[in-house]
Amino acid sequence: MYDIAIIGSGPAGVSAALNAKILQKRFIWFSSGAVSEKVARAELIKNYPGLPDIKGGELAWTLKNHAESMGIEITERVVTGIYETGDKFSLTVGSDIFESKTVILCIGVQSVKPVRGEEQFLGRGVSYCATCDGFLYKGKTIAVLCTDKRFEHEVEYLCKLAHKAYVIPLYKYCQINMPNTEIIVDTPLEFAGDLKLKEVCFKNKKIEVDGAFVLRGAVSPATLVHGLQTEGGHIVVKRDCSTNINGIFAAGDCTGRPYQYAKAAGEGNIAVHSAVEFLDKK
Amino acid sequence: MYDIAIIGSGPAGVSAALNAKILQKRFIWFSSGAVSEKVARAELIKNYPGLPDIKGGELAWTLKNHAESMGIEITERVVTGIYETGDKFSLTVGSDIFESKTVILCIGVQSVKPVRGEEQFLGRGVSYCATCDGFLYKGKTIAVLCTDKRFEHEVEYLCKLAHKAYVIPLYKYCQINMPNTEIIVDTPLEFAGDLKLKEVCFKNKKIEVDGAFVLRGAVSPATLVHGLQTEGGHIVVKRDCSTNINGIFAAGDCTGRPYQYAKAAGEGNIAVHSAVEFLDKK
Repeated sequence: MYDIAIIGSGPAGVSAALNAKILQKRFIWFSSGAVSEKVARAELIKNYPGLPDIKGGELAWTLKNHAESMGIEITERVVTGIYETGDKFSLTVGSDIFESKTVILCIGVQSVKPVRGEEQFLGRGVSYCATCDGFLYKGKTIAVLCTDKRFEHEVEYLCKLAHKAYVIPLYKYCQINMPNTEIIVDTPLEFAGDLKLKEVCFKNKKIEVDGAFVLRGAVSPATLVHGLQTEGGHIVVKRDCSTNINGIFAAGDCTGRPYQYAKAAGEGNIAVHSAVEFLDKK
Repeated sequence: MYDIAIIGSGPAGVSAALNAKILQKRFIWFSSGAVSEKVARAELIKNYPGLPDIKGGELAWTLKNHAESMGIEITERVVTGIYETGDKFSLTVGSDIFESKTVILCIGVQSVKPVRGEEQFLGRGVSYCATCDGFLYKGKTIAVLCTDKRFEHEVEYLCKLAHKAYVIPLYKYCQINMPNTEIIVDTPLEFAGDLKLKEVCFKNKKIEVDGAFVLRGAVSPATLVHGLQTEGGHIVVKRDCSTNINGIFAAGDCTGRPYQYAKAAGEGNIAVHSAVEFLDKK
């Protein structure tokens, strides 16, 4: 059981991790990729106070090193669900469950919106987790929507299990090449069906499937945490970074504009202090 | 007429200045002392993301240099009053008035509370400004409460004008030495009088005066801006750092805990973005 689970490793996540470490909390820090991956793609940052004219890659490296210099470890796994269970939270990570008393969401903003019907058919044909649900589709027909090259091993795992797999890569240079697999270079518009998922619809065609896997670095906040209050895709937080769910805090771009590194780092700091206050009160 | 007046030069003020510059606003930045003076007194800072294990002095120097590297100038003067005048604000600085469409308060938290009666007798015997009001007390008896060595030249100016001056230094090694001046090493507890100030009261004595000057690096937010909503000494702000007065924003320690550099820098960033949005709407 952890005191704090931090999800995300942008500036907000790094800031949260530093403070959780300093405040000597038992915490776990999840990242779906490299630390500050999105920061690394920024060209030149002029307004992060104390680091003038820093390139994105350099800032990402600096933040990563700061955490490492304090002996902070990162768990490179994707959290796909957070459930309130009594006075704690259960986090679904692949086929594992992690438990924590508080959660700090530093999950950034999604550049990819969920596909229409995605939330509706989640658990009814749509899955986020290859290792958890893959076996359910052994010998069946599936679609695999994959947003990033780094999930290709999961795609391959699913293709091996399935009778027939449609792979929909949302990135360039997909290298999946298996006999039972068809690559579709198109944007899926809708998951359709009745009680269960039946089709994946594109602009000019539909494919019939038994199930569909969506492999993303992150899922939308409302999908990640059932009942979490959002507004325009942002998590609604108070000044202390608390959300509408007691014990869940949020920091960084996911809480809204301005999308700024200094703002994110500041909120990561605030969120941990609020989480610690919450833990102390319990 | 400025677009933005930034008051204070801690991490919030520096962050605000960087962003005002980048967003190409016409702004003026006031500091009552050295940039990030309070930061400089911190021993070791471990949780400012990107600058691991940095000494206070080094962080202060780094922040100052960042601003300087962008050609940002600082105005080393104390703002003693902010007044809403139509759709702009007038800032009293010594005997000068500066005008700005918006104001960002980054004034930190006061370690010195106002003396009882200070606000009550402000303008009725109590003054914050030697150069503006000194002449009113020519040939009279005054008390001069001084919180910092750097205001000693103002103290001397007042002593020269007065017939008799009681100087109350709230710092060590006061070097005022003038024939008509008595140094009182004691804490003033109250300014008393009826319609006008008459006495300064200490634990075991009172002194009769015609006027009293209070020379501080900063005044309390509620004294600085009439009508500003505060709570427990902190300025009440919304998530966008706006206060209850349209066009006035606040950032950093003055908006409440946690008193953290990252939080302050984040809010300085947010406040400018909000001020710019406010200006655009006008």
